[in-house]
Amino acid sequence: MDRVQSIIAANRERYLAEFQEFLAFPSVSGDAAGLTGAVAWVADRLRAAGAQVRVLPTGDGPDVVFGQVGAGPRSLLSYTHYDVQPADPLALWESPPFEATVRDGKLYARGASDDKGDTLARIQAVEVYRAAYGELPLRVKFFVEGEEETGSPHLAPLAEQYADLLRADGVLWEGGGFDEAERYTLYCGLKGIAYFELRVRGANRDLHSAYAPVAPNPAWRLVQALNTLKDAQDNITVDGFMEHVRPPTEAELAYIRRIPFAGAQMKANWGIPAFIDDMDDEAALVRFLTQPTCTICGLRSGFIDEGEKTVLPSNAMVKLDFRLVPDLTPELVADLLRGHLDRRGFDDIEIKSFVGMIGARSDMAATVVQAAIKAARAVYGHEPVVYPNHGGSGPMYSLVQGLGAPGGIMAGVGYADVRMHAPNENIRLDDYFRHIEFLVAFMQRFATG
Amino acid sequence: MDRVQSIIAANRERYLAEFQEFLAFPSVSGDAAGLTGAVAWVADRLRAAGAQVRVLPTGDGPDVVFGQVGAGPRSLLSYTHYDVQPADPLALWESPPFEATVRDGKLYARGASDDKGDTLARIQAVEVYRAAYGELPLRVKFFVEGEEETGSPHLAPLAEQYADLLRADGVLWEGGGFDEAERYTLYCGLKGIAYFELRVRGANRDLHSAYAPVAPNPAWRLVQALNTLKDAQDNITVDGFMEHVRPPTEAELAYIRRIPFAGAQMKANWGIPAFIDDMDDEAALVRFLTQPTCTICGLRSGFIDEGEKTVLPSNAMVKLDFRLVPDLTPELVADLLRGHLDRRGFDDIEIKSFVGMIGARSDMAATVVQAAIKAARAVYGHEPVVYPNHGGSGPMYSLVQGLGAPGGIMAGVGYADVRMHAPNENIRLDDYFRHIEFLVAFMQRFATG
Repeated sequence: MDRVQSIIAANRERYLAEFQEFLAFPSVSGDAAGLTGAVAWVADRLRAAGAQVRVLPTGDGPDVVFGQVGAGPRSLLSYTHYDVQPADPLALWESPPFEATVRDGKLYARGASDDKGDTLARIQAVEVYRAAYGELPLRVKFFVEGEEETGSPHLAPLAEQYADLLRADGVLWEGGGFDEAERYTLYCGLKGIAYFELRVRGANRDLHSAYAPVAPNPAWRLVQALNTLKDAQDNITVDGFMEHVRPPTEAELAYIRRIPFAGAQMKANWGIPAFIDDMDDEAALVRFLTQPTCTICGLRSGFIDEGEKTVLPSNAMVKLDFRLVPDLTPELVADLLRGHLDRRGFDDIEIKSFVGMIGARSDMAATVVQAAIKAARAVYGHEPVVYPNHGGSGPMYSLVQGLGAPGGIMAGVGYADVRMHAPNENIRLDDYFRHIEFLVAFMQRFATG
Repeated sequence: MDRVQSIIAANRERYLAEFQEFLAFPSVSGDAAGLTGAVAWVADRLRAAGAQVRVLPTGDGPDVVFGQVGAGPRSLLSYTHYDVQPADPLALWESPPFEATVRDGKLYARGASDDKGDTLARIQAVEVYRAAYGELPLRVKFFVEGEEETGSPHLAPLAEQYADLLRADGVLWEGGGFDEAERYTLYCGLKGIAYFELRVRGANRDLHSAYAPVAPNPAWRLVQALNTLKDAQDNITVDGFMEHVRPPTEAELAYIRRIPFAGAQMKANWGIPAFIDDMDDEAALVRFLTQPTCTICGLRSGFIDEGEKTVLPSNAMVKLDFRLVPDLTPELVADLLRGHLDRRGFDDIEIKSFVGMIGARSDMAATVVQAAIKAARAVYGHEPVVYPNHGGSGPMYSLVQGLGAPGGIMAGVGYADVRMHAPNENIRLDDYFRHIEFLVAFMQRFATG
C-alpha cells in the first residue's frame, strides 16, 4: 500500500461520515431552503481543505461556491454541483433518499453519484494530496454550483463575469466512471443543444375538412417545411449547416476506434432492425459522437384522439432539437434555420428558441486529457475507454473553450448501475475511495505533464 | 290562392300539431328506447297518407321505415331519417328540445330541420297532392332510417339487400333550403370520404434524443412519406389518384358559374389572406365542389406539451381524410395509397382504414334535377341556386348511382339559421308549409317531366 492509499485508508471512516453528512442536505434543485445548508457546508469543507473560498451570487439563483487551493504555473478548474434531482417517487427507495445508507458496499442516497460524490471526492483528494506530498504544485479552482439539474441558467453569464477568476489550463468536469464491463471511462467533450418550437397557423379556428379544397392546411405546410430540413438518409440539409461541422480528427477517430461498442445489443434492446441508413457499428459510433442532429421531438396538429374527426386544423407545431458539435452555436443554428425557411417561402412559420448550449470538445493532445488517461492507467490498471465527445449535451463549453482552455474531461465516481435521477441512486464505496486515489494521480500528472 | 295552397291552409293547424307530436319523441341517435316510438309513429303516419308500409330490420341497428304510395311509370325515392343529434348542452336551449315551441313564426325543437321536418313535410305533401288531384301519378317510396346521425352504418348493405324495392328513377335526399340571401338552394351530389390513420414505429420506447444520430425517428419518416402525397400547390400526388377524377362537365360548370360565392367574406371570416394557391373565387368554387381532397386532420408524435423535452419518439401518427368525387371509391383510394407508399419504400407504414363512403353526383339533365329546378322556380318565384355537388360528404351514392338512378337532389325545409346539431334548432313555419307546396309541384313535374 503506497502513501496515498495509506492516507485514504486511515481517513476512510471520517470521509464516509462527511459524505453522509453532505448527502443529508435535501438540496433539491430549485428548492431554495434545501440548497442553503449545502452552500455553507461546501464552503466550510473547502476551507478545511486549505482553500480560499468566495461565494459567487447569481442574483435570482442559488450561490456558487468558489474555492482555490495550491500554487504553481498550471491551474485546474473543477466543475461540480451541490443540487440534486427530486427524490420522487419516494415509495421506490429502499432507504430514505436523504439518509445515506450503506448496504453491500454501496452507499445509497440522492446525490451519491450526481453530484455530491464527485464534489466531495475532489475536496478530500486535495487534502490527501497535501497530507502525502505537501502543498499542491498547481492551482485547483473549485466551481460548485447549485442549479445544474435545472439547466445551469447562470453558468454562461457567470463564466463571462468571473472569466479571470475561473480561467484555467484544463477543466475537470462532473460525471464519468466505470462502464458496464468495468472499464474506466473518460469523456472529453459534450454536445451543445439548440431547441426550437415551430408554429404554422392557418384559419382562425379549426374548419370542417370539407373546406380543404380552398382553405390552407398548416399541417401540410409544416410537413413541407420540415421535409426540406433533412434528406432520406437523415442528413441535415439546412442551408449552410453542415459547412460548420468539422470532420473528426485522426486523433479523435483513433480513440473512437478503441471504444468497445455493442451495436447489435443496442439494436436488440431498442427493437430496431438497423441503425439509420443501415450504418455498421463503427460508422454509427463515429456519427453518434461527432455529428450534429436535427430531431423531431414532438409533432402536433388537429385531432389526435382515438377514432375519426373530419377537421382541417388551424395550427400545427413541431419541437425540434439540434445537438450541436463545435462551431455550431444555438444562435448560428437559429439564424441558419430562419434563413433556410425564409428562402423557401416559409417566412410565415414562427420559430420560438429555447435556451441553448454550445458544444465542447477537447483537443485530444491537451494536458488535461493526457493526464487523465495516464492517471486512469496507473490507478485502475487498464487502458481507459476515451470518448472524444459524449453523445449527450452539457454546458461544458462556458468553462472550457469559452474561457480559452484547450480541454475538459469528465471523470467521476460512477459505475453502470448508479441509478442517476432514479430511486436508489448509489455508488460503490470502493469506487469512491479509489477515485480519490485517481484524483491525486491526475493532479500530479496534470501539474507536471 | 290555388287549390294546393287552400288545402295546406285548411290543414295548417293539424299539420303543425302532428309535427309537434313527431318532435316530442326523444329519438336521439344511438338511444334505442328513444328511437322505438318514432318508428311506429312514422309507419302509422305513412299508412294514414295511403302508403303501404314495411319495416326493414337492420340487425343491431334501429329499423328503417319503408313506405310506398301512388302508381305510375316513374318512381321517386325519398331518403330522410327520424333519428336526431343529442340535445346537449341543454342549458343553452330557450325552450325544451323535445317540446316543440312556436316563437315569432319559428318552431324550435331538436330535429325541426334535421330531419323530422323533411320527413313529415313529404308525407303531408303526398296527402295534399291526393286531396288536390287524386291518386299520385308516380310511385313515391319513403326510406326513413334511424341512424343517420351515427354514420348510417347499415345503409349500404340495406341498399344492396333491398335493391329491387328501393330502386327508383330519382332520389329526393334530405337537406337543403334557403341560403343566407334567401335564395332557394338545391344540391345535386355529395362527396364520398375515405379516412385513414397511418402509423410509423421506431424503437420499442421513446429514446433520449442524444441517440438521434443512430436511432430511426418515425416522425421524420412520416414527414417524408406525407410529403410525397401532395405538392406545394396542394395537388394530390398519390400515384394514379388524379387519373380517376373526371373534369367537371360544361353543364356542371355552367351551374357553378351561377352560384353566388362571396370568397372575400369567407376569407375574412376565416382570417386567411388567400385561398390555397391564391385561387380566385371561380377557381376556388369549382375546386371546392368538384375536386377531391387529401387532408391532414391530425398529426401526433412524441412530446407535445408546453416546454422542451429532448425525446426521440417511438411512433408517429397521422389521420388523413380524403373527400371523394365520383369514380374514387374508398377501396380504390386505400389501394392507391398503399401502392404509392410501398413503391417509395414506406411499406413499414401501417394504414388503418375507417368506414368510407362513395361520392354521388347527378347527371344535371336528370329528370329529378330538372323537375326540382322547375318546381323551385314556380313555387319560390326565383331561379334556385343549383350546386352540382355539395362540398361535404354523405351516403347518397348507395341509394342513387348504387341502384342505377341518374340523379338525386337535396331539397329541404331549411334556411340559413336552422342551428342544425346545435341548441335552439328551428325552422320557419312559413318555409315549412311553402315547402309542402314545393314538394307537390316537384312530384307533378317529376312524374311528367
